[in-house]
Amino acid sequence: MAKDRLRIIPLGGLGEIGRNTLVLEYDESILVIDAGLMFPANDMLGVDIVIPDFSYVFERAERVKGIIVTHGHEDHVGGLPYLLAKVKAPIYSTRLTRGLIEVKLRESKINGVELNTIAPGDELSIGPFEIEFFHVSHSIPDGVGLGIHTPVGLIVHSGDFKFDHNPVDGLRTDFAKLAELGGKGVLLLLSDSTNAEQAGYTPSEQVLGETLARVFSGAPGRVIVATFASNISRIQQVTDTARRYGRRVAIVGRSMVSNVRIAREMGYLNVPEGTLISADQVEQLPDNQVTLICTGSQGEPTSALVRMGQRDPRTISVVPGDTVIVSATPIPGNEEVINRTLDNLFRLGANVFYDELLDVHVSGHASQEELKLLINLIRPKYFVPIHGEYRHLVLHSKLAQQCGIDPSRIFLMETGEVFEVNADGAGVVDSVSEGHVFVDGHGVGDVGPSVLDDRRLLSRNGFLVAVVTLDKYTGSLIGEPQIVTRGFVYEAEAENLLGRIKQEITKVVASGGSRSDITERLRAFLARFAMEETGRRPVVVPVVNKV
Amino acid sequence: MAKDRLRIIPLGGLGEIGRNTLVLEYDESILVIDAGLMFPANDMLGVDIVIPDFSYVFERAERVKGIIVTHGHEDHVGGLPYLLAKVKAPIYSTRLTRGLIEVKLRESKINGVELNTIAPGDELSIGPFEIEFFHVSHSIPDGVGLGIHTPVGLIVHSGDFKFDHNPVDGLRTDFAKLAELGGKGVLLLLSDSTNAEQAGYTPSEQVLGETLARVFSGAPGRVIVATFASNISRIQQVTDTARRYGRRVAIVGRSMVSNVRIAREMGYLNVPEGTLISADQVEQLPDNQVTLICTGSQGEPTSALVRMGQRDPRTISVVPGDTVIVSATPIPGNEEVINRTLDNLFRLGANVFYDELLDVHVSGHASQEELKLLINLIRPKYFVPIHGEYRHLVLHSKLAQQCGIDPSRIFLMETGEVFEVNADGAGVVDSVSEGHVFVDGHGVGDVGPSVLDDRRLLSRNGFLVAVVTLDKYTGSLIGEPQIVTRGFVYEAEAENLLGRIKQEITKVVASGGSRSDITERLRAFLARFAMEETGRRPVVVPVVNKV
Repeated sequence: MAKDRLRIIPLGGLGEIGRNTLVLEYDESILVIDAGLMFPANDMLGVDIVIPDFSYVFERAERVKGIIVTHGHEDHVGGLPYLLAKVKAPIYSTRLTRGLIEVKLRESKINGVELNTIAPGDELSIGPFEIEFFHVSHSIPDGVGLGIHTPVGLIVHSGDFKFDHNPVDGLRTDFAKLAELGGKGVLLLLSDSTNAEQAGYTPSEQVLGETLARVFSGAPGRVIVATFASNISRIQQVTDTARRYGRRVAIVGRSMVSNVRIAREMGYLNVPEGTLISADQVEQLPDNQVTLICTGSQGEPTSALVRMGQRDPRTISVVPGDTVIVSATPIPGNEEVINRTLDNLFRLGANVFYDELLDVHVSGHASQEELKLLINLIRPKYFVPIHGEYRHLVLHSKLAQQCGIDPSRIFLMETGEVFEVNADGAGVVDSVSEGHVFVDGHGVGDVGPSVLDDRRLLSRNGFLVAVVTLDKYTGSLIGEPQIVTRGFVYEAEAENLLGRIKQEITKVVASGGSRSDITERLRAFLARFAMEETGRRPVVVPVVNKV
Repeated sequence: MAKDRLRIIPLGGLGEIGRNTLVLEYDESILVIDAGLMFPANDMLGVDIVIPDFSYVFERAERVKGIIVTHGHEDHVGGLPYLLAKVKAPIYSTRLTRGLIEVKLRESKINGVELNTIAPGDELSIGPFEIEFFHVSHSIPDGVGLGIHTPVGLIVHSGDFKFDHNPVDGLRTDFAKLAELGGKGVLLLLSDSTNAEQAGYTPSEQVLGETLARVFSGAPGRVIVATFASNISRIQQVTDTARRYGRRVAIVGRSMVSNVRIAREMGYLNVPEGTLISADQVEQLPDNQVTLICTGSQGEPTSALVRMGQRDPRTISVVPGDTVIVSATPIPGNEEVINRTLDNLFRLGANVFYDELLDVHVSGHASQEELKLLINLIRPKYFVPIHGEYRHLVLHSKLAQQCGIDPSRIFLMETGEVFEVNADGAGVVDSVSEGHVFVDGHGVGDVGPSVLDDRRLLSRNGFLVAVVTLDKYTGSLIGEPQIVTRGFVYEAEAENLLGRIKQEITKVVASGGSRSDITERLRAFLARFAMEETGRRPVVVPVVNKV
């Protein structure tokens, strides 16, 4: 690496939504900003989570001076346990974020990590970097953006943000600090692109208050609100509205219960004693005195809301007269399961309000006018859009052009690419990562394209394994061929088909040959026979034993 | 069945989007309206298409007097080949619909079907039913709704419709006929619920003309428009706009080419000679004189647009300067693949316009105000919302209530339920169908829940088959156990794991027992070992041979 240059390497979050992770490297010092996870796409079959490829950092683990976490969402903290497995460095975050990180580390049985609490307004030295933290409003409290003074110039990192002029917790994105940083001359702005498709301004979280009041005031029975467990402001508004309408509140769903507990303990959620009831107490109160706040707004299979829709006896039953509010927008890929959940709730007689019908959700990310406002407050020399799928990055870069940033000073980067910058110039110089690291069960990174390809084939037409045992001296078949199949045909009805396969196998084997010859002929026969007879392509595996 | 009652049985399309099929039965006569297919949900693994369970009709095949097809979309005609396999009855449809049915029957190698052409305004007797056809505007030309005079009263079936006051083909939904039918006194209205979530009015298809003109006028290179192959009005507007801006038009994608040919031959698409060029000629013209109209607006894996995004050498390459318009909204479940396609096109440097950014699509279905207008024109005694997922049916029934239809005269039905009606009353009396019939390869209905369950398990963690051969006299192991696995672990890296499985299997087998004892112990061992070592749950199958 050239001297006097700052390297910036996003290990996640550029060209994708999730696993936001940014490496800053100068001389022999590395600062990591966020370490997130990504939820798998529908075609990443069997994958539990996707994390960044941390190899670049692992190979330079001793250089890592610190890890800053901008806020407590999974796409910013969820990769920490995997990063900390090989990197020993202090973590810096605000109070609530720290509380959420502590839970995560405890669950992952990781001890001995140095956790430091910072507050907006603080300044901090980490290696060659001087960092100023400023508050940003977002869909979780206690988010920060960063002003990073580096040897090559000042860098501003937006974190995940919106300009909510009237946030529920009263804490606005710090315009003054942004203007101050802008006045100092900013070399590079890194800014959140998640909502770059959205025209105008993102509404204030506060506007939901009126919508909630309208729904609560007309609800004859219970009101059940599903939202993200981390959206403390939303939970605050729902409990406030519930109290206003004389209702007690039950919190349902593991992550919701845990987050509400932490947020209350730390003072981020203001719920007076006597408001909360346990799920068991719900049935003891008249329906019009009850509100439930639960998980499941994304149709997650084991979540509270989905179970309610499926009449799961382990959770509360939805009955006619209940009002359900799904206070979230579908994350792309979840639409089918969400729609199914909505339909199930309607089938049980609930009155359901959701995104398509009523504005029961606002985003935590800045829309186009806000993104332009940030660019104009900062007036950076260089601009790199972060946090977004590729089209979001492109659209964000167009906004920057509209604000007068020259296209030659805007860089469209993707995860794993290496950006170098100093006072003389900037550019993408290299690429260090292959991409996705899949976590599946205990395995981290062992499941790759070939295993996924097999799963894809198996998901379509199952498998067909044929086992033949041959006499090692005569080559003749001992006993009957055995067929093992799953996901290919309905065995109870396919006896005839499987019988014919056995007969044909006997003929294939009878022509003799080496073990590998026979195996190859069997493979070809099985694939052809399956296709001709069923029009399907199961995974076929012949097993030839010689005894 | 009670005498003097009309039975109505939806075999598809209620509580789901697709496979619209309605059975009308009176005395010994059956009339079938539409016979559609449904595209599988993402969790119907390996399924090609979903068709209605036609058993009720098959068991009464000789009673079927006719099949009416309201328009040529797959969710109304795609089930015909499967229905005609066991039912011999004349088909009635408009000219274009008939043309599309002919193609379908030819592809399915079905001959000898009596096809009859009807036109809006025609009246027709089929058994005890007198049918009046009226034009409806929709996203394919030549759609009709039905006024059906039955012995118990007049029924109106909306078909798929919208009230486009200014349609591209000039043919409006027939208000006069609807008012006339309403004036006669309608016993029952069956109306399309697809867009019951949408407030207001669906815009006219015509408004797209201005948007297209704006995009075309500013496009420096080629303009590539992806839309549904059946949306002839859209194709008409794109070719008109292309001509206005001095561009020739290439049609790309098998179904698009076929539909354009039929629509031109039959006079539904007006494209002057010299406008169309072949895909091969595209490269010979300057980019700003070329427009492509192609398939792929839903991210279909083998479609033209998706291939263009993947630099597939078999199709045209997208280059910087190209403008792409995706003129469709995502069908729920397709969002991920569509977003991936958009990102790929942006990566190739195209300027991409899509739903989120610009109104480049209008729906073919009536929104809430139009649905209410239809209800008020018809003023039916009874109302059954059809064509929609369950929440659409519920929302449509609420609109009917707003229009003053008493809730006791509105029936929320789902596919397979039996509705009986006469002048004295109406109600859901029975259910005749289990639900989905899956077509997978050549198989129709053989793939059911158990095969799908296996595919689901296989899709997550693959399979692990262990084969052991035992001496049938001593019970001792002959040779080594053999392991066959796919989709479970990456074999090249899992040698150690698989080696240990073999060792453990040897121990399990050594404890002896009957073949079924050993099989059961092996199954338990394999599942436990896989879980403990990898945290995964492959499908495990032990095979014990005795020789």
